[in-house]
Amino acid sequence: MSDTKKVPVGVSARHIHLSLEHVDALFGKGATLTELKPLSQPKQYAAHEMVSVHGPKGSFAKVRILGPARQLTQLEISRTDAFTLGINPPVRQSGSIEGTPGIRIVGPAGEVTIEQGVIVAARHIHFHTADAERWGIQDQQMLKVRVGGERGVVFEQVLARVSDQYALDMHIDTDEGNAAGVTPGTFGEIID
Amino acid sequence: MSDTKKVPVGVSARHIHLSLEHVDALFGKGATLTELKPLSQPKQYAAHEMVSVHGPKGSFAKVRILGPARQLTQLEISRTDAFTLGINPPVRQSGSIEGTPGIRIVGPAGEVTIEQGVIVAARHIHFHTADAERWGIQDQQMLKVRVGGERGVVFEQVLARVSDQYALDMHIDTDEGNAAGVTPGTFGEIID
Repeated sequence: MSDTKKVPVGVSARHIHLSLEHVDALFGKGATLTELKPLSQPKQYAAHEMVSVHGPKGSFAKVRILGPARQLTQLEISRTDAFTLGINPPVRQSGSIEGTPGIRIVGPAGEVTIEQGVIVAARHIHFHTADAERWGIQDQQMLKVRVGGERGVVFEQVLARVSDQYALDMHIDTDEGNAAGVTPGTFGEIID
Repeated sequence: MSDTKKVPVGVSARHIHLSLEHVDALFGKGATLTELKPLSQPKQYAAHEMVSVHGPKGSFAKVRILGPARQLTQLEISRTDAFTLGINPPVRQSGSIEGTPGIRIVGPAGEVTIEQGVIVAARHIHFHTADAERWGIQDQQMLKVRVGGERGVVFEQVLARVSDQYALDMHIDTDEGNAAGVTPGTFGEIID
């Protein structure tokens, strides 16, 4: 009856979520995001559209937008990216942007400077409700996940996010993925 | 009699070691490296001198040289850096460069293209012989080291390197440091 709690591990490169208002401001009134490819989570997609982001020290020319549009604009970067931009965002759960740094965002039809919204995303696992029930995992629980191999790591402080809108997938950033030697097809095991 | 095995954690940014021959080629015949600041290991130092390195996809303009000069030239970068340069170096112990990628190195007095020598340094701990004996640790042993906090991580596959020329210090790269939220003054604990 052993049931190893294996989870696919996905590495999230820097990306941005835009509000409808900011899609308008950056791409023109009435513009819409168009799907380049679907993501692991239902109805989420990488858009064809990209923006540049500009910090006090550096910038990134092509930042992928993830759609659909959300309530709040949010830029998710790695700590390495943060040094390049010259800002110091906290590690936060998606959507929790109070008190975070802002950034200047430039699109083909205009630019926007947000007062807050830049985070280093907290490592997390999306569980479908059925997965969470099977493994006895609660929404917002903190887990430990082992990724083996030549750069083996146990990630602590992995946030469980449970919804019947989610598909089972662990999300870490590029620093974390590189530190653990994660490649496409890597699985982690929930050990606690 | 509990003796917690605490080790200071140092994050190594990208850097290069040069052979005497390459110091000559890059800085001029008879040039010598000059000390900017000492490192954690006795007699090792960060030099004032820097070089640029150039891969097929990108480059870094100012790469710090660590002195003194060594037998072999070796560039140590993170996986993130490797993507920027467009090369795919393996994770290796320092000095083990057989079959690794080369790189073009440019200094103020000339340039050199090495055929091999680029590595992602394997995470490791320098132990003075006395520390290793006290804790029952053998040279080349693989350890597990926990770094706590908001981005808590257990690093597996941490290589023990023991010498009476070493001072106790754990060395990880910037991807690993950022993934674990390491800041100056962070300690790890050897747990296995």
